[in-house]
Amino acid sequence: MKKVYVIGIGAGDPSDLTLRAIEAMRAVDVFFFMDKDGAGKENLIAFRQEVLTRAVPEASYRSVHATSPERPKDGRDYEKGIDWWRGERRRIFREMLSELGPEETGGFLIIGDPALYDGTTQILHELAAEGFEIDFEVVTGITSLQTLAARHRIPLNRIGEEITVTTARLLAETEPEKISNTLVMLDGRATFLHFKETDLYIYWGAYLGMEEEILIAGPLKEKADEIAETIETSRARQGWIMDAYLLRRP
Amino acid sequence: MKKVYVIGIGAGDPSDLTLRAIEAMRAVDVFFFMDKDGAGKENLIAFRQEVLTRAVPEASYRSVHATSPERPKDGRDYEKGIDWWRGERRRIFREMLSELGPEETGGFLIIGDPALYDGTTQILHELAAEGFEIDFEVVTGITSLQTLAARHRIPLNRIGEEITVTTARLLAETEPEKISNTLVMLDGRATFLHFKETDLYIYWGAYLGMEEEILIAGPLKEKADEIAETIETSRARQGWIMDAYLLRRP
Repeated sequence: MKKVYVIGIGAGDPSDLTLRAIEAMRAVDVFFFMDKDGAGKENLIAFRQEVLTRAVPEASYRSVHATSPERPKDGRDYEKGIDWWRGERRRIFREMLSELGPEETGGFLIIGDPALYDGTTQILHELAAEGFEIDFEVVTGITSLQTLAARHRIPLNRIGEEITVTTARLLAETEPEKISNTLVMLDGRATFLHFKETDLYIYWGAYLGMEEEILIAGPLKEKADEIAETIETSRARQGWIMDAYLLRRP
Repeated sequence: MKKVYVIGIGAGDPSDLTLRAIEAMRAVDVFFFMDKDGAGKENLIAFRQEVLTRAVPEASYRSVHATSPERPKDGRDYEKGIDWWRGERRRIFREMLSELGPEETGGFLIIGDPALYDGTTQILHELAAEGFEIDFEVVTGITSLQTLAARHRIPLNRIGEEITVTTARLLAETEPEKISNTLVMLDGRATFLHFKETDLYIYWGAYLGMEEEILIAGPLKEKADEIAETIETSRARQGWIMDAYLLRRP
């Protein structure tokens, strides 16, 4: 049985590492990195390296790198494309995991928390279902949504209210009156502009936990254009953006 | 200006402390504890003490304790009751914070994350709005919902889906077909039984992160009664229960 840790490392600040994550990282012989090509890649690699240096300063581990296959876009043959993509991810994982010797422990480092918008545990379950002998453990991490709330010093919900975490695409189809406390991660396209004429409030942040962190909050009517502009100028300056926001009924 | 940290300490395991939380705790001169009377109180106090011992073994701090006023129940004069309750909380906070000397730093320890089902930041904002001079900072913590997902080794949502975090009361009024990925914290009354005849899946956990941790998962049709029974027998044995679960469309 191969032993593997799937470790959440927080959103952008190594101080968000938990003691358990550090302990797990220190037990790892081989780290597996599945990188996506694209803007921001270098910053994510730099953040991961900073975290590794903090947790395992003696660098007593090996690293195995692979490039993540691109997820198919919507359109004809979408289902077939997704099947291909899933199979390809399993193949790459099997290949990476074959680098793990008997008695060795593997590790995946996940930005944020492995439970939120990350496919690693899903792929490992698929491999196990195919008969691949693997024993994996998940370690929680602080997400950018939590950092967003902490920086704005707000609760994500008020007494008796619910919270929805959604995608930019689903948000675009949502009726404004259905929004009570709605969180969106990794939009990058200012989908909140759809609701500019409503009475909603927005609490927005980009590069959360990082040095470049930006925070803007207020009535959406007053702040929507300013935030949309900030997204454009920041992306132009940094070459990439990762943002998150809460829309809230007043 | 009084400086105060509001610090998330995770759900039940001191290993979930972040480096930032430990650093903040070590900077605190006076910890403020607002305790609720009731079952489970002693376990929460024991957990908090364990966390304090881990982070500040030399115990170089003072402690100030107060009892949280009970939140009014629904019914006639509910609004008036809530006003009284809010005022009472502000009064108690002002009294506690008056124990803080000039140049000293205060700290509140919050189970889970201060952004989820906790009123501390709200009270501090109310005090600031009344002119009370206070500068506070929020430190994120791992929530029981994240521990639930990690222990079951599942993502909280699948690709393109949304997540709802709701209360037992709102869940009871939800149409089953509206449920995609719905999380409930601190139910304790097995509200999932309402959906026993549906095709939903449940991932349930109690005492998450603690020694007494219990996990049950499967089709709700098959598991609902077993979980409801486990809630009753656990509560009878321990005197209290804290549970959380995810209901998911198959």
